[in-house]
Amino acid sequence: MSTRFEHFDLSDVRFPTSRALDGSDAMNKEPDYSAAYVVVHTSGGEKGHGFVFTIGRGNEVAVAAIRAVEPLVVGLDVDEVLSDMGGFWRWLTHDSQLRWLGPEKGVTHMAIGAVVNAVWDLYARRQGLPLWKLLSDLTPKQVVQLVDFRYLSDVLLPDEALELLARADPGKHERERHLMAEGYPAYTTSAGWLGYSDQKVLSLVEAALSQGFTHLKLKVGADIDNDVRRVKLVRELVGPDIQLSVDANQVWDVNEAIADISRLAPFDLNWVEEPTSPDDILGHATIARAIAPVRVATGEHVANRVVFKQMLASNAIGVCQIDACRVAGVNENLAILLLAAKFGVPVCPHAGGVGLCEIVQHLSMFDYVAVSGSTEGRWTEFVDHLHEHFVDPVRVLNGRYLAPTRPGSGAELRPGSVSDFSFPNGRVWRELSPIT
Amino acid sequence: MSTRFEHFDLSDVRFPTSRALDGSDAMNKEPDYSAAYVVVHTSGGEKGHGFVFTIGRGNEVAVAAIRAVEPLVVGLDVDEVLSDMGGFWRWLTHDSQLRWLGPEKGVTHMAIGAVVNAVWDLYARRQGLPLWKLLSDLTPKQVVQLVDFRYLSDVLLPDEALELLARADPGKHERERHLMAEGYPAYTTSAGWLGYSDQKVLSLVEAALSQGFTHLKLKVGADIDNDVRRVKLVRELVGPDIQLSVDANQVWDVNEAIADISRLAPFDLNWVEEPTSPDDILGHATIARAIAPVRVATGEHVANRVVFKQMLASNAIGVCQIDACRVAGVNENLAILLLAAKFGVPVCPHAGGVGLCEIVQHLSMFDYVAVSGSTEGRWTEFVDHLHEHFVDPVRVLNGRYLAPTRPGSGAELRPGSVSDFSFPNGRVWRELSPIT
Repeated sequence: MSTRFEHFDLSDVRFPTSRALDGSDAMNKEPDYSAAYVVVHTSGGEKGHGFVFTIGRGNEVAVAAIRAVEPLVVGLDVDEVLSDMGGFWRWLTHDSQLRWLGPEKGVTHMAIGAVVNAVWDLYARRQGLPLWKLLSDLTPKQVVQLVDFRYLSDVLLPDEALELLARADPGKHERERHLMAEGYPAYTTSAGWLGYSDQKVLSLVEAALSQGFTHLKLKVGADIDNDVRRVKLVRELVGPDIQLSVDANQVWDVNEAIADISRLAPFDLNWVEEPTSPDDILGHATIARAIAPVRVATGEHVANRVVFKQMLASNAIGVCQIDACRVAGVNENLAILLLAAKFGVPVCPHAGGVGLCEIVQHLSMFDYVAVSGSTEGRWTEFVDHLHEHFVDPVRVLNGRYLAPTRPGSGAELRPGSVSDFSFPNGRVWRELSPIT
Repeated sequence: MSTRFEHFDLSDVRFPTSRALDGSDAMNKEPDYSAAYVVVHTSGGEKGHGFVFTIGRGNEVAVAAIRAVEPLVVGLDVDEVLSDMGGFWRWLTHDSQLRWLGPEKGVTHMAIGAVVNAVWDLYARRQGLPLWKLLSDLTPKQVVQLVDFRYLSDVLLPDEALELLARADPGKHERERHLMAEGYPAYTTSAGWLGYSDQKVLSLVEAALSQGFTHLKLKVGADIDNDVRRVKLVRELVGPDIQLSVDANQVWDVNEAIADISRLAPFDLNWVEEPTSPDDILGHATIARAIAPVRVATGEHVANRVVFKQMLASNAIGVCQIDACRVAGVNENLAILLLAAKFGVPVCPHAGGVGLCEIVQHLSMFDYVAVSGSTEGRWTEFVDHLHEHFVDPVRVLNGRYLAPTRPGSGAELRPGSVSDFSFPNGRVWRELSPIT
């Protein structure tokens, strides 16, 4: 008898991070880092884990959206799905009724991403491999079959993608050995949250340097005079050899971004992240031309591969920031990695939040081993929050992510964390005093 | 004692339209036209009506998203909200936690649109005016205050918007009289659904002509040979003086769109609608350059004003198709009307679905009276389905929308329809035999 997908377990998990302003920035002032968490179960007792990351209110809408995907999955033959993950992606993404709710954007698209990622987690567990290794072992042809080229064909055709992958193929084993030995470069945002005092930032910067980080990111965008002062302080502390980037979290309009970045540029910025609306491709291109050689980065809120295609094709971004849980999961991120490779733009994933580091490290490592073939000018974001809630937390040593070795994608939350932080009835939420 | 917003009544209303392929097109093969319907109640017993339009599965996610907006509204003073509808819009749209779920796109953005529209409905009822008249009576300065210029300021500043409105101001009363006497031009899509037989299409085309329509739209995109044959048949039947447009509902990639449209262009098309992904601004611009003088139209799936800004600024669209329920309601549509006016692009709203005609006619009429000042080359879509479920259904006579005279926005569903078509437990759904 064949193994089939049987049901989803869903949880609304929220961490009360707003109480300490962890994760605070100019746009997202009081986030409660949250996950709409799904465990996909099969009739054979296998499990796969995934989630939508949110920052609090509305996490229940993401849960409802994952629930809406469940009937499309339950009853499908697991072997058939795993042997055609590209077809499975299209089955979910192109469902003619659900598609109306995006299309391919917002909560329903993220919900499909959670389910796609959960099935990849299950697949990797079944193979006994960490996700990055499962992906890296695929042939170029198998990778191309995972990608939906709909809406991409004016810029990237399957044959060209195949060529990109074939070019990287010969060095795969050597790079895999290097990755296992050396890990993958990380940068840290933990020092620079907007809600922290100067003193706290400076002591966290020193701590980050002592931990071996060579690239730090600071939040800006609330007040430019304050931004200039803080960036200057940090640059003076770290000296000229440390990479500094800044992140405005979409608060600027186009002309305001250009003006404000010109005041920050003297402090030698690696990139400026999310200068304006993630939907504004032409605006990003205008900013990029104006602030060169400082580079524009964005992606954590870019809705799908169609927007990434345009950002890359129009030189709007010099740094491509994929997010594990914003687009529709692993498959769509593979499409974006291929687009970035075509345009020679380095991929530096967004992470942090809840479990974003745990998943996205696999995609960076796959990018290094099988697509871009390089870690030069590439870093995966690291934020040192909430890892203790994961069964297989990231290991970051001397400013580098160590390659995961346990089977799966890293998305599995500890059962005790799921129950304690379930909203609104978990132990932690019941014990919290209400905000007055 | 002040009047406050008290609670939302929510209903998941679905019409089993897929059984007759009403509304079928190349992308949306079997839609069950649906509404996530909200009635906003105040402590004074006032009500306002709004909805998210969907095509079936996932309508419950839209209901959950509206429920997530409720806590931001309940308890607010109604007078204060109505006196600053621009501030109310920003309050909902820029909520820092909910915003993460878009930002400004997908289900959560549409849910805010439903709530904003419901409050406008309440406002118009309180004033005893149809929505178009309430809006038309506002001064240019009041209109500008309703618009959030965030992310627009590189293309349109409040002062320029004020000038556009001031230019139209002197003729308002004359145009209002004309509107009351003559109505607003409509075009019809009722004849051209993809799932209909040629015979059914041709007899519906003849019916549309006899009803006074001079502009018809046909669905294309499933099979180009079939499209060419059908468009040719219809053009031969209607002769050269009737406007014909086609709608591909996003099924083409960029190069495919250009190739297929070149085969349809000989039949004298007014516009080609949704040739590709609504997120592909650069793709639309490429198509527009290639198929000129045939015009590209899109908008019903354009997520927000930021994407419209780029579509207009890059000449990607020659026809701007606002939708009453895709963006965040009346306020955001005012922004889009102003952007379209700046670039001299005619606004021809998308309608049909459930109640989209009822609401969007008000925006077309406001555009005519107070913004563009013209109906030339402008038509509001008309689809003759499901109007019987509305308390104040549209009146279309001789190919024109008659100006509504009853107070409100037209969004109120008949109570019997809400109960009969509630999903899954309303009478109609209980009586339907399951699809096998």
